[in-house]
Amino acid sequence: MGVCLHDLLKRFSCLLGEVVDLTNPVEDGMPYYPSDPRPVVMQWRGLERDGVNLKLLLLGSHSGTHVDAPAHFVEGGATVDVLDPMAFSGEAIVVDARGYREVPPEIIPLDLPRVVLIYTGVSTAWRRGWVTYDYPYLSREAAKLLVERGVKVVGIDSPSVDAPGAEEPVVHRILLSRNVLIVENLSQNLGKLVGRRVWFLCLPLPIRDGDGAPARALALVPREQ
Amino acid sequence: MGVCLHDLLKRFSCLLGEVVDLTNPVEDGMPYYPSDPRPVVMQWRGLERDGVNLKLLLLGSHSGTHVDAPAHFVEGGATVDVLDPMAFSGEAIVVDARGYREVPPEIIPLDLPRVVLIYTGVSTAWRRGWVTYDYPYLSREAAKLLVERGVKVVGIDSPSVDAPGAEEPVVHRILLSRNVLIVENLSQNLGKLVGRRVWFLCLPLPIRDGDGAPARALALVPREQ
Repeated sequence: MGVCLHDLLKRFSCLLGEVVDLTNPVEDGMPYYPSDPRPVVMQWRGLERDGVNLKLLLLGSHSGTHVDAPAHFVEGGATVDVLDPMAFSGEAIVVDARGYREVPPEIIPLDLPRVVLIYTGVSTAWRRGWVTYDYPYLSREAAKLLVERGVKVVGIDSPSVDAPGAEEPVVHRILLSRNVLIVENLSQNLGKLVGRRVWFLCLPLPIRDGDGAPARALALVPREQ
Repeated sequence: MGVCLHDLLKRFSCLLGEVVDLTNPVEDGMPYYPSDPRPVVMQWRGLERDGVNLKLLLLGSHSGTHVDAPAHFVEGGATVDVLDPMAFSGEAIVVDARGYREVPPEIIPLDLPRVVLIYTGVSTAWRRGWVTYDYPYLSREAAKLLVERGVKVVGIDSPSVDAPGAEEPVVHRILLSRNVLIVENLSQNLGKLVGRRVWFLCLPLPIRDGDGAPARALALVPREQ
């Protein structure tokens, strides 16, 4: 068993190149959606005074880089704690959607792996705090095409797959009602991987009955050969 | 590149058996260390009233299943956001420490991989809420031995590696001052893997300047052959 695992890891590290972090740091003053709680990160205990460093976090289930489970918008939909821990991970392609306000179906490749990651470029404004009501989003047609082509996870570096101020979360519902999972607020590092195939590793906190959760998202990039 | 990644994944899934979740659910009323903030998980928006489900989380950086970065107890120590995203992961052995109040050095195997996971059994009391001042912990001698044998990550299913009510966090300091990282409050699922070698995957939230962070922790178990 030990030998088998060791062998597996040797082969894996042989083929693995770089690990790219696609997660925005969790910090005080980070951007947030207006209907969400304002994230707070503060020092709770300090080494000098208390002999220990410890922080307090106040977050929404959709703060920062996070996942949407079907329960976010679907009555009786699956929650993040009952989904397979690897449900948000898998082989992925990174689609270049720079320059579009509404991501059109035309730029979605024909042959799609389990995960599609859409890079709009809006994530480059994360550190300045993006203007929440001015970000790129998915067209309904692009969302429907992703469902038809069998995609299981859609990730984006934008705060939402739906249009700013949308009266109905149409795009969320197209995806989540078919159990296509969503990852939002991926970091600008996604821009380094445009057009490439990577292995997307995204592990959310298992919030009990959670409609979504903050997550750590990484790209495992194969070695250039 | 795509072919190469596909090949990598085929080989990987060929050898991979089960994925075991080692993370306790994040929920209201979960146990917490007395000096930590009391974790709160509450409904912030509801589908019926607001058209969306969303939760609010109030957590400490060491609530639930979490990692300790050196900065937790070491002045100027590394914080969780600057560590390699894979720093807490790697080949692991699960050591059976059931029946000990203080984990002795004698039960630590000679040949150790990158990660050592210690199963005390106290995690079976998680759902009832463990009694914080009655849990098993590491002896100084066991901690020193782990450092000497080159271990990089020590995980445990107990709330702390230090003794309940310890005046000084001696065991934390032995480990963290040598940049040996810590994972605490692993779930009782660790008990299913006693004596086995697994691949430990543990991704913390990248809290800016974080002394630690809630994390998702999994064991990738090789297929029986």
